[in-house]
Amino acid sequence: MNHRLLLACLAAMLFALPAASEDGYDLWLRYQPSAPGPVRELVAGAGSPTLEAAQRELVRGLSGLAGAPIPVVREPGQSGAVLFGTPRSSALIAGLSLGLERAGDEGYVIRSTSIGGHAVTVIAANSDVGALYGAFHFLRLLQTGQGSQSLDLVSQPRTKLRVLDHWDNLDRHVERGYAGQSIWDWHKLPGWLDPRYTDYARACASIGINGAVLTNVNANAVSLTPPYLEKAAALANVLRPYGVRVYLTARFSAPIELGGLKTADPLDPEVRAWWKAKIDEIYQYVPDFGGFLVKANSEGQPGPQDYKRTHADGANMLAGPLAAHGGIVMWRAFVYSSDNTEDRAKQAYSEFVPLDGKFADNVLVQVKNGPIDFQPREPFSPLFGAMPKTPLMMEFQITKEYLGYATHLVYLGTMWEEALEADTMVSGKGSTVAKVIEGKLQGAHSHSGLTGMAGVANIGADRNWSGSHFDQANWYAFGRLAWDPQLSARSIAEEWVRMTFSNDPALVTPVVAMMMGSREAAVDYMTPLGLAHLMGTGHHYGPAPWVSDLKRPEWNPAYYHRADASGIGFERGPPRNGNGGSDATSQYSPKVAAIYADPEKTPENLLLWFHHVSWDRRMSSGRTLWDELVYRYDHGVETVKQMRRTWDAQRDRVDAERFAQVAAFLAIQEQEAQWWRDACVAYFQSISKRPLPAGSAPPAHPLEYYKALTFPYAPGRG
Amino acid sequence: MNHRLLLACLAAMLFALPAASEDGYDLWLRYQPSAPGPVRELVAGAGSPTLEAAQRELVRGLSGLAGAPIPVVREPGQSGAVLFGTPRSSALIAGLSLGLERAGDEGYVIRSTSIGGHAVTVIAANSDVGALYGAFHFLRLLQTGQGSQSLDLVSQPRTKLRVLDHWDNLDRHVERGYAGQSIWDWHKLPGWLDPRYTDYARACASIGINGAVLTNVNANAVSLTPPYLEKAAALANVLRPYGVRVYLTARFSAPIELGGLKTADPLDPEVRAWWKAKIDEIYQYVPDFGGFLVKANSEGQPGPQDYKRTHADGANMLAGPLAAHGGIVMWRAFVYSSDNTEDRAKQAYSEFVPLDGKFADNVLVQVKNGPIDFQPREPFSPLFGAMPKTPLMMEFQITKEYLGYATHLVYLGTMWEEALEADTMVSGKGSTVAKVIEGKLQGAHSHSGLTGMAGVANIGADRNWSGSHFDQANWYAFGRLAWDPQLSARSIAEEWVRMTFSNDPALVTPVVAMMMGSREAAVDYMTPLGLAHLMGTGHHYGPAPWVSDLKRPEWNPAYYHRADASGIGFERGPPRNGNGGSDATSQYSPKVAAIYADPEKTPENLLLWFHHVSWDRRMSSGRTLWDELVYRYDHGVETVKQMRRTWDAQRDRVDAERFAQVAAFLAIQEQEAQWWRDACVAYFQSISKRPLPAGSAPPAHPLEYYKALTFPYAPGRG
Repeated sequence: MNHRLLLACLAAMLFALPAASEDGYDLWLRYQPSAPGPVRELVAGAGSPTLEAAQRELVRGLSGLAGAPIPVVREPGQSGAVLFGTPRSSALIAGLSLGLERAGDEGYVIRSTSIGGHAVTVIAANSDVGALYGAFHFLRLLQTGQGSQSLDLVSQPRTKLRVLDHWDNLDRHVERGYAGQSIWDWHKLPGWLDPRYTDYARACASIGINGAVLTNVNANAVSLTPPYLEKAAALANVLRPYGVRVYLTARFSAPIELGGLKTADPLDPEVRAWWKAKIDEIYQYVPDFGGFLVKANSEGQPGPQDYKRTHADGANMLAGPLAAHGGIVMWRAFVYSSDNTEDRAKQAYSEFVPLDGKFADNVLVQVKNGPIDFQPREPFSPLFGAMPKTPLMMEFQITKEYLGYATHLVYLGTMWEEALEADTMVSGKGSTVAKVIEGKLQGAHSHSGLTGMAGVANIGADRNWSGSHFDQANWYAFGRLAWDPQLSARSIAEEWVRMTFSNDPALVTPVVAMMMGSREAAVDYMTPLGLAHLMGTGHHYGPAPWVSDLKRPEWNPAYYHRADASGIGFERGPPRNGNGGSDATSQYSPKVAAIYADPEKTPENLLLWFHHVSWDRRMSSGRTLWDELVYRYDHGVETVKQMRRTWDAQRDRVDAERFAQVAAFLAIQEQEAQWWRDACVAYFQSISKRPLPAGSAPPAHPLEYYKALTFPYAPGRG
Repeated sequence: MNHRLLLACLAAMLFALPAASEDGYDLWLRYQPSAPGPVRELVAGAGSPTLEAAQRELVRGLSGLAGAPIPVVREPGQSGAVLFGTPRSSALIAGLSLGLERAGDEGYVIRSTSIGGHAVTVIAANSDVGALYGAFHFLRLLQTGQGSQSLDLVSQPRTKLRVLDHWDNLDRHVERGYAGQSIWDWHKLPGWLDPRYTDYARACASIGINGAVLTNVNANAVSLTPPYLEKAAALANVLRPYGVRVYLTARFSAPIELGGLKTADPLDPEVRAWWKAKIDEIYQYVPDFGGFLVKANSEGQPGPQDYKRTHADGANMLAGPLAAHGGIVMWRAFVYSSDNTEDRAKQAYSEFVPLDGKFADNVLVQVKNGPIDFQPREPFSPLFGAMPKTPLMMEFQITKEYLGYATHLVYLGTMWEEALEADTMVSGKGSTVAKVIEGKLQGAHSHSGLTGMAGVANIGADRNWSGSHFDQANWYAFGRLAWDPQLSARSIAEEWVRMTFSNDPALVTPVVAMMMGSREAAVDYMTPLGLAHLMGTGHHYGPAPWVSDLKRPEWNPAYYHRADASGIGFERGPPRNGNGGSDATSQYSPKVAAIYADPEKTPENLLLWFHHVSWDRRMSSGRTLWDELVYRYDHGVETVKQMRRTWDAQRDRVDAERFAQVAAFLAIQEQEAQWWRDACVAYFQSISKRPLPAGSAPPAHPLEYYKALTFPYAPGRG
């Protein structure tokens, strides 16, 4: 190639770059041209805003995948037609025998069949939103290279409420948000409806999410005033065709702050009348308003206990007037008190289990997966299985408050799978947490049958929505698991990788493997062996295991690790021989308790969560605990290095823009993993007084260096 | 067309939409394919990062405009070649006689000529950045349909410092920002260099901006600590090839806050040593660091007066060590004191004029265009022309703090043109403000020759950069006027419209006309006839002329309008007959003062700025002042209605996405213009006690309604 031609080619490549590169805005709905598929035409199926949304998505998706516009026709005219809708919307569908009774209210059937001699793919449902979900499922099959098979499948969600909790303030600050400002541009609402709201709804519908709590659990009564209800109504109008209902957070003291009452006592008639009127008012703005999410008597939020009432009193006060409109209450079990000296891990159980059976039918108690607070690893919360008369809703955190913010690649599917597969043993073996939240456990039939899963959203105004490309996988995985808590984290990761990057096996296999190992890496370089909450206080960015001088004991990392000259860990077994055990293990069902109460039976990855053990304890690896601790920290850093190598090998298989951002973030992750490792090893060594195991490098800086670091502007502060 | 074909066409259109629509990210650098131009090939001209940037931009622009890659060749091989560079970078350019001495350090020559028998366009400069500026100029000619002419032009900037002031905090909040968070993602710096930083630099270079103050004038000493200097250095590395130097704001008390000193007295040797060491340190991170912007002893900021020193003492302390590295100080004249009962409009002059000649050579005093604070209309600041021994740098506000935020379409080119064309008369007729800031006025030769213009940026993380599509025009106009303060606002608007939307005269003519009238509309519906500062206190969103109970007098809108039973306006003429005149008019040169001191000579559009006059005063229209005031409010609203009609007529000439956002924002603007009009008319009528003129509708709500509105989450708070 001569020089001149080379230059011309280079110029052509440069010119091509902007068009070829991708910025992540399209999420897993990229619909890039792929191998020719079986679809030739789409049979028009509109008739409601939801079916119109389904048709728009099918036109967009099928045309994008085909690389050419797909014709929309009135009835199948050739083989390769796609037909979608409900028996009500389509006489053709009504005429087929599809077994739609298996699809339930929100599910769908996708079947390859023939109509008038033409091969047709039918996407059918009992409801418009079911057809929309089916359309997305069909597009997913095409995107992941499964479009050529003969199809015969049925799917319906295993939980009823699949909700994103946005911890978004009215000033657009997102608490624990690492993806820029809130996507809700309250100031410009209702006059300006950002097209992004529609794309948010599309993304949610594509994975079955059917609810959005628009406002922060640390609630602001202003969100319940008419100007903000008008804004919420405008958002609800955009989300409605996609099956996404709007919820708000209720500040318990709103009757005082907005209503001018002297009390917010849930048994006070004026208070009850105020809430009834407020709820009736909300439904005038949003006729299908979903209900309230409430954080009460937790971390300074007002609540019924301010008036010596119970959580049930508070929840039921709201539930009554909501029930009249079909609304529900999600009441959080995330409570711990500054006055309570009980092990923080025990407090939610202590407060809530006695209330089992006392909540109104349209109340769910929303329980975080672990007993503390979204740590890299926690055991499952003992509440699961312990409140058979109450629907327990899972609360996962999609945003990575404790997992390195947006710049650490940590796929949370494996963490959630671990939590959902955890066996409570309350009705014998196989009494998994997944079954609890699906309402399938024996005993659970005594409650209303409401079920749900909530995820604290990782969505913001950043162009790529989630702050990083791989954090999109966590949004995706949450939605998929909420639809079906039995799905495997690996299959979800694979779906996501195929849709987000490529079906090339040379990419899919290593990238999925990288994702599958990523959470364990984070556990290793942050909080191995059951350690927890070593993050810098307040912002939770980076390591600060040395902090021990804050007023409230549970604000201090030292509260959680309890390292001393003799060993490390929080003794939560039964108190014996003056071991100071908090007896948190007794909150689990007897068979589980027997395991966790015994350090010899406790899985090593939770050992220091449940037990204070000697630095010299022998671990299954043959190493001492101290050596094992250092080994795990080293291993975490090493895994991140391996992740970088895995990604670097994908350079030619990923567009330049996304490749570069992921590579840069992985470099940050490696730096920060090293920082975590060095700071924690330096600190714990100052207590263990033991030498580093052979081959383990000393920390780069003395401990004082790490202690002196400050991060006054770490994002996402509460 | 049969039904089936129609559906297919509709589907094709739907499919085409995402590609065809635009989101504003590309600003005025869209480079969309246009009529075939004269360019056939680009002669490679790289050799430095800046020339490489020029080449990348030319390849991108020429290829985009041509709709096909433009070949990059070693030397002209056919007619229609483009040759760019400097005599140093290109022997071909060195061999041409271009009159480059006319281009100065940063300017360029663009000339059509021939080389070896081939028609060539030469873009030549004495410096690499001059060639980059020339490349952008050439692309502008092509984009605006002027590419086919034979070219022979020379351009060089009339000011040396053309700087954007970002009022951006380290937590990414932008004070007075209406375009989302700060574009500077401090937390992820220096590890992640958002490609947006490069596009920011491209946009700046395209209009000649050569400096960026990264941090808020309400400064934070943390920005001067090593971790943040490392982040600033990473940004500087991105901006450098585009000729954009990085500046920071200096918190005057930093020696106390960071250095642990007991004082920040600028004459204290330890303080001076601290700053010298800090400045030397900064240059280790950023070798071409531009210098400091300082807000001192203003609105609570610390400053030299805290130690009974002057602004000159403070500025010179910083200037000394900066001079050693080629850095400068921009010292703001925006000062007013809570203790000072003098007319706020007079205070900057009173404080600064006595210091003329006392500033070091590398200090500029940065003066807002008007005496108060970026109001929709102010007279020019009396400082212009009054400090002949001091370089005065213009400070314009691009972000629309007082002009309706992002949702009001207000083109500021006309406002800035009005300020620059204002005649100070200090050296006879024609002593315009533009000449003052260009350093061209008689007497100005006694200073160092530094010149500059600063604009408070309207840039944020919003996809469209400026919060609205039309606010991009204000960024553009600022850069163009900083390069040449003599340019007309109309020609700038036209350039921008052609590049941003289309060269179609059916669009250009009405849209430019709409822009040209937009600022006068805002003046009319907000603060007509010389009124000012009637905005809600603190957030400055919407009308609040009734506020009069805040502690500091100048916090109250009532301080500015002084409406009472007898009339309205702030008497700033000479005190006589007990009129309470503040004598601010005497700060102007005698001929100007004679005009402003006399209500009969004062232009009516500044009447109430300078005079308190009777409600019944007869205006040039024949109406009474009261009737005229209402008429202007009505006229403002009517103009916005007309703007909406103008825009609606462009539906077929603008892509759907931008069309829709502008239309939605104009609808908001009309609503808010009506709100402004109704609230102000209701309030002033409650004082004037006069009937509305015939044909003028009563306000939609009683005054109390408007007074009760609150906006606790208006964006951009200080």
